[in-house]
This record gives sequence, C-alpha cells and structure tokens, in this order.
Amino acid sequence: MPEHAISPTREENYPEWFQQVIKAADLAEASPVRGCMVIKPWGYAIWENMQRILDRMFKETGHQNAYFPLFIPLSFLEKEAKHVEGFAKECAVVTHHRLELGPDGKLIPTGKLEEPLVVRPTSETIIGASYAKWIQSYRDLPVLINQWANVVRWEMRPRLFLRTTEFLWQEGHTAHATKEEAIEETLRMLNVYSTFAERDLAIPVVRGPKPACERFPGAEETYSIEAMMQDCKSLQAGTSHFLGQNFSRAQEIKFSNTDGNEEFCWTTSWGVSTRLIGAVIMTHSDDDGLVLPPRIAPMHVVVIPIHRSPEERDAVLAACQRVKTLVADLQFAGEPIRLRIDSRDMRGGDKVWQYIKQGVPIRLEIGPRDVAAGAVSVSRRDQPPRTKTSMPLEEFVLALPSVLEEIQQQLYDRALAFRDLHTQSFDSKEAVVAFFTPPDSGNRKSQEPMLHGGFARVHVADDPRVNEVFDPLKVTVRCIPMDGDDEPGFCIITGLATRRRSILAKSY
Amino acid sequence: MPEHAISPTREENYPEWFQQVIKAADLAEASPVRGCMVIKPWGYAIWENMQRILDRMFKETGHQNAYFPLFIPLSFLEKEAKHVEGFAKECAVVTHHRLELGPDGKLIPTGKLEEPLVVRPTSETIIGASYAKWIQSYRDLPVLINQWANVVRWEMRPRLFLRTTEFLWQEGHTAHATKEEAIEETLRMLNVYSTFAERDLAIPVVRGPKPACERFPGAEETYSIEAMMQDCKSLQAGTSHFLGQNFSRAQEIKFSNTDGNEEFCWTTSWGVSTRLIGAVIMTHSDDDGLVLPPRIAPMHVVVIPIHRSPEERDAVLAACQRVKTLVADLQFAGEPIRLRIDSRDMRGGDKVWQYIKQGVPIRLEIGPRDVAAGAVSVSRRDQPPRTKTSMPLEEFVLALPSVLEEIQQQLYDRALAFRDLHTQSFDSKEAVVAFFTPPDSGNRKSQEPMLHGGFARVHVADDPRVNEVFDPLKVTVRCIPMDGDDEPGFCIITGLATRRRSILAKSY
Repeated sequence: MPEHAISPTREENYPEWFQQVIKAADLAEASPVRGCMVIKPWGYAIWENMQRILDRMFKETGHQNAYFPLFIPLSFLEKEAKHVEGFAKECAVVTHHRLELGPDGKLIPTGKLEEPLVVRPTSETIIGASYAKWIQSYRDLPVLINQWANVVRWEMRPRLFLRTTEFLWQEGHTAHATKEEAIEETLRMLNVYSTFAERDLAIPVVRGPKPACERFPGAEETYSIEAMMQDCKSLQAGTSHFLGQNFSRAQEIKFSNTDGNEEFCWTTSWGVSTRLIGAVIMTHSDDDGLVLPPRIAPMHVVVIPIHRSPEERDAVLAACQRVKTLVADLQFAGEPIRLRIDSRDMRGGDKVWQYIKQGVPIRLEIGPRDVAAGAVSVSRRDQPPRTKTSMPLEEFVLALPSVLEEIQQQLYDRALAFRDLHTQSFDSKEAVVAFFTPPDSGNRKSQEPMLHGGFARVHVADDPRVNEVFDPLKVTVRCIPMDGDDEPGFCIITGLATRRRSILAKSY
Repeated sequence: MPEHAISPTREENYPEWFQQVIKAADLAEASPVRGCMVIKPWGYAIWENMQRILDRMFKETGHQNAYFPLFIPLSFLEKEAKHVEGFAKECAVVTHHRLELGPDGKLIPTGKLEEPLVVRPTSETIIGASYAKWIQSYRDLPVLINQWANVVRWEMRPRLFLRTTEFLWQEGHTAHATKEEAIEETLRMLNVYSTFAERDLAIPVVRGPKPACERFPGAEETYSIEAMMQDCKSLQAGTSHFLGQNFSRAQEIKFSNTDGNEEFCWTTSWGVSTRLIGAVIMTHSDDDGLVLPPRIAPMHVVVIPIHRSPEERDAVLAACQRVKTLVADLQFAGEPIRLRIDSRDMRGGDKVWQYIKQGVPIRLEIGPRDVAAGAVSVSRRDQPPRTKTSMPLEEFVLALPSVLEEIQQQLYDRALAFRDLHTQSFDSKEAVVAFFTPPDSGNRKSQEPMLHGGFARVHVADDPRVNEVFDPLKVTVRCIPMDGDDEPGFCIITGLATRRRSILAKSY
C-alpha cells in the first residue's frame, strides 16, 4: 500500500492529482465526444444534493422554475452588441435537421435550415424574447424565473468539471420595474450563492464586483464569489449580473408604469454550474482522495460489516441493522441522515479505501469484537485514514448529527485558515510580482503543498493599464471584496484613488 | 361571462380546446424556435412534481441518476441497424463549432467539424459506449442508471406537450447478466409507470407489449402504457424496452461470467416525458380549463380573501392566516399540503376563475360573513364551478387530507368509467371498421363530448396484414393487455390463433 491513495500527490502535480481524485472517486470521465463529460452516479448525486438545496433557496426568495428552448436563432444572438462579442464565438451550430442513409451505410446531414440555430451558451436572448411578450404592465413585474439546464460552450482545452463543452447549471433571469430593485435582486442572489458556498459546501468565498474587463458580456455590473483552491488559485464559483437596460433595450422588454408611460425593464441574471463540484474537490480533498462536506455528501455514513464465519456474519449484520434503524429517526441539516450498509462480498480493507477515496464523511466498522462489546469503530474522513475510535453503539448514534456538524465546520475552518495563510496585502507592484512569481521548481521539497501566490490584496483601479501589467503573470483582478470596511488608497499602477483593496490572483 | 371558460369546448373542437386549456392555465407556449416550447412556471411545477415522485420510485427500485453528453457522434448512430432506420431521420445536426461576425453584423458559422454531431434523440448509443468501458465482469452487473435530460427529434407538425422538437424526459438504461433479469427489469419499470399513472396522475392505463411494427427501433420487445383521452384516442404514456443483446452486440458491451467466459449483456431502456402533462390535460380537464389530480398539483388549496373595508380586510386576512397555520401541520400523500393565500389587489371573481382555469383542486373563499360565522366557503375543482359549501373552518382543515384523497380518487374513477364506456370487444373486421368510422359530422349535437371510437378489444395477430387493413382508418394495435385472463381466439384478419385480445385505437 503506497503512502497515499492518490498518485501524484497535490505537491507533486496538482492538475494531475485533480484528475486522479475524480477517477478514484468515480465522479466523472471524459466522453467520446470531445470536451463533453459523463457525470457518473457518485458525481451526479453530489450535483443532485447541490440542486436540492439551491432550488429550495431560490424558491424561498420568490423564484419559480421554468424551461426555455435549447436552441437560439442566430439572429437573437446578434441583438446585443457586447453579448455577440462575448458569446458568439465557440458555439455549437445546428445547420441541418435531417439525416439520410447513404449507399455506404454512412449518414449524411440533409434538410439545411434557413437560419442556423445555436445550442444555448446562456439564455439571456431566448428568455428575453419571452419576457418581451409576457411583460406589458408594472403589474406583471417582477418576473423571477430560474432554469435548470445544460449549456454548451465549445472548449478547446477541456477539464472535467472546470471547463467542459457541455455543462449543467442553473440560470436565473429576472425583470424589474426599477434599477434599485434589480440591483437588490442581483445582490440577493449573490448572497444566496455565498451562503450556499460557505454553509453547504464549506468553502469560504470573497464576494464582490468584478472589474469591467471581467464582466459578463452585456452586463453593467458582474458580482462573483471567488474561492481559493489548494494550489492558491482562485476559482470563480458563481456570478450574479446586473444587466441594466442593455438586454431590455435590445429585445424590447417594456412595461407601462403606474403613470401609463412605457419604460424598459431592468434585468438581472445569475448562475452556478457543475463547476462547483470542481471547487469542492479542490478545496477539501487530500492525497487520499475526495473529502466531502457532509451537507452535500451522497452518503453520510457507511457501515462496513467485518466477519469470517456465518455465525459472526449474522451477529455483525444484526448490529449493523440496529445502527441503521436507530439512525433512521435522526436528521442532519434538516434532512434524513444518509446511511448505507455495505455487505458486498469483498475484503473490508478494500471497502474502507473505496469510501476514503469517495469522501464519505463517516465510516463505521463493526466486527465480532465490537458486537461483543456493544461498540462500533468510527473513522472520520477529516482525520488521518488509520484513525479509529471505538465507542458504544448508542453513544455513536446519539452523537452522529453533531459529529456531522463538526466535520462540516472543520472543513470550513481548515479552508478558511488556508486562505488566510495565503492572503497578503501589498502596496507595490514589485511585491505583487514577487508574490506571484514561482520559486525555483527544482527546490520543491516543502511539506506545504502550495508554494507561491494566493490572494493579493492590492489597491488597483478598474483600468486597462492594470491588466496589462499583470497579464504576463496570468494574474487578474478577481473582484473588489464587499465585506469589511473601506480602506482608501491609491492604485499601485495608475496612482488613481481607490476606495478599497481588490483581490488579485491566478485563476481557473 | 360565457357558459364555459374555454372556447371552443371539447365537443366543438377537441384539438383547439386542448391548446386553449394550455393557454388559459398558463402552462406553456410555442417558442420562436420552430417546434420548441417554453414551459411556463405553472406547467414546469407540474413536471417538477412528476419528477420528484418518479425519481423516488426509481431510487426505491435500485436506480441511480447520472448524466451523459447531449451530442452523439454520427458514427455511433450508425452502429445498430434498426436504430439507424428509426432514429437517424429528423435530427438536429451540429456541423460547426464557431461563429464569426461578418462585416454586416451577421454571424457566420465557421469551424467545420470533422464528424458531425447529432443532438441526442435518445441515448442508447452514447450511454452504451460508456457501459462497454465500465462493464468487465459479472461483478459489475447489473448497471441500473437513469438520466433526466432534454432530447431533440425534429417535428414537422409540433403540438405542445404531445410532439415537440425538444422535450424533457427521463431515460433509464440498464445492463444485466441474464435475459431473465433484463426482462424482469423491463416489466418492473413498466409497472412503476403504470403505478405512477394510476396512483399519481389518476389516469387508468392498459399495460402490455406492442406489436412488432410499433417497437422501439432496435428493441426485441416494447411494452407501453396506453391511456384513453377524452376524444377516445389512445396516448402512449410511457414505454419500457427489452433490448435483448442487440445494442450490446453493436456496441460490444461484454462481461466475463462466473466461468470466466465472455458474454454480451442484456439491456433495457425505459422512458416517460413531458408528454405526460398532455395526458393529464386531456384525461381530466373540462370546458372550464385544467383539472389537476391533487398529487401532482403545484397548489392543493388556494385561499381567496374577500373584503371591502380595511377593517374587513384585517379580520379576513387573519382568518386566512389561521387556515394556513393549521394546514402547515398536515400532509397529503406523504408531502406537506401546498396552500397559498392570494391577497393580490384584484377582484375575487377574477381570482376564482384564474384558479378554475389553472386546475387548483380546492378553492377557499373567506369573507366577513364567513369570519363572523367561523366558517369558510369551499369549492372543489372536480365539481361544477358555482358549487360552494360553507363549513366551519376547523372542520375544513381536519377533513382536508381526506378531501384531497377523495378528489384524486374521483378523477381516477371518472376516467376509468369513461374508458370503460368507450371500450368494446369486437369479433369482425366490419364491426371494428364501423366503430372507428366517424358519424356524419353535421349531426354533432350530443352532450357526450366524444362521438365515436375508443378502445376496440379484438383478436389480431402480430402480422403486417393487420396493419394494412386498419391503416386507412388511422387505427393501430396499441398493445396486447397483460392484465386479466387469457382468452384464446382467432385473428379477425388473418385467421391465425391468438392468446388474448389486443387493444386497437386511434392514437396521438
């Protein structure tokens, strides 16, 4: 047995470690269709848990779900100028609607479409066309709709969960009578995302507006939540856009106000995707594989019976069943506790390692000696793999909800400590450049997996000159954090006055 | 106010009545993309309820969800000969992966793909490619996976919910070591569908295998559930396919058995779609609009406050709130009761008609006189629109779960009685032809909305000659019902011996 279940380790090769964690946990794999992925049951179950929690939060904030077409006529994309530039690039284009079987048994596309269709890269334009029809009066506002859907953005360098040609997401699209209300909605959903990330995914995030060059094409303001991964890069984990009247003007989304005058609506859009699974992997996992926050784990507890003889088997399985029965009445985070007894006919050690690699928060082993003592052997995924604690069966059951809560908190605390450790304030360009410049790679012997960079808190203006300076380092302004007090200063590049420090980082 | 909220009535023009019910209930609408629909919030909420119940049933029968790519390489579709013939026809074909902005501001498809991609019409071939990789040994079997997804089949004559170019569905795909186990699975899922249709949608269905010419392309046996709509036509509401080894041979889905020998897997697939919403509409709705079975209704009870003065308003709203608070503790069909107070500032009568047209099972009106009497005015959607019953508030609350159950049962009973009334056994070709021949349309004065046809129970062989005879009438063999005893006879067309009667009907 090697020292760690995953090879290479984070330290040895972080991107390859990421791929190997996905493989070892059986989360997803590349498909025969370039850039697309197959989300396997364990990966999809994580997504289902994310969906269920988010969907509840969307409904609690007054949103309803609906479904709009997969295809967008080319002419729709042409309507909003910046949107065209931003999205009309790497798209899947449908040009034919029929196949005919050639004499050689090969299929030939026929039935050419008069107007090609684009497989939606995002749905502002197609949803806007509906809103223009639906909205007549201020009485029809606000429109608060969300859609769970697949979208396609052709990817030249795909990576599972992070950048795939097809991915699953939700996209909220709302229309309002006033600017203030639309901005309030934009921030409300940003907060839904940050609450979800921190409470449910145990991922600390920085919330804030992005610089102009990083905005959603066609937005007046884009807010994001940014999370630090274990390689110190930032991952944009969700975005909420204030679209102003840009799309409503382009698409004629108008309403008559209380005075009977026509106005353009103020719109927003916001989304998170299966990329969040990538964020969870890269925030919490270790060199033994996936580590899952209990709130989104498909299984909270796995019970592994250990036995040799048939008599042992019966007694052991009865004890396992007793745990299951007792746990059936318990809840964690408002949901039933998800427990499974794995009585497959294979070595207990192999099972244990499978569940370590799959990130199940709590493993329970029950053997004949445990049965005799009325005890169970408990292992926690947030502790080293060979750590086991024996405790009375009933005591384990009673403590279970609070132990799950403790693991959830522990993962958050660790991630926060990691982020704090790798966040620094800088007041000169040279210091920032030094922070982001890799050390001599021949010297990578440190125990700390991450060797350089992180979040640099810097005074920078929202100005192209700033981007030009940091571009060669692949460093960008991620966002201007909203939390905490103002701290006036001057841009280290342009000298312009700034109200707060921005976060600069390398990113996914 | 016209006699009925929906014009035309079922009797006057059934297909147009269907469109108008959808419109009046705000369920869905045609989109700017030909053949695609927008599913609006009320329609989507019905689909969400269907999904939640079915998903639970799939998981209880051992299935897991996963997600496979939207795109299928053309060469995959070519692998299974019959599948090619059946599905490689009206497909959306992606031929380019990039758009470039021309000098006139128009977008031009560029980046031609080496191999065109088909937007999945169904996923046997792309999922099979994964199964071929995943399955090595009998220990890997069975594979029991379901996918919730959108699929595209280019439709020349689209109809909302019944035939749309893009639709939402679930598709189960399973692989087994033995033929017996695969057939067992096929029937298990057929039964899940019939249970769901009858228990949750209140739609009585006939279960059974379809004749060879109606099979899924590539299947060895296709079973369907068939439901009679109020125009006496049959709607295929779900299918479960035993695929034999056809797909596993075409795609090399092999396993080594317990003796170490290689065998091909036995596979199944099964699916239901947003078509079920069409089935619900056409089974239960009336000339006042949608009627929803309580188990899938987005709202079980709407409470409408009736008041003029501010003092009345306060007292009335307090009573409404008291109903809400009391109902919050109640359950129906294992789920919380879905109740909403509609305190919008508009006429009570307009609200009442909105909820009639939207099919909400129970309407509650509370006015000052009700408050004074400690009573509520109750109307049921399964009763005529002007029927109101006054009852003490607490009594209403206590009875609510059983009233919902009663409505659910009532809808099922009515649909069953309707089907029984329009089901007849025939023993000659002439009698069947007469049954399906429309009466003189100038004479349509009957109160019965449906004037001819229905389910004909007939002895017919699974033989092309049978189809030839009934084809001019647009009548097909829907299935051979599995329930009830064998009843040997002879095919009325070919004279061949048959074991049971088949169901013949016109269909959607």
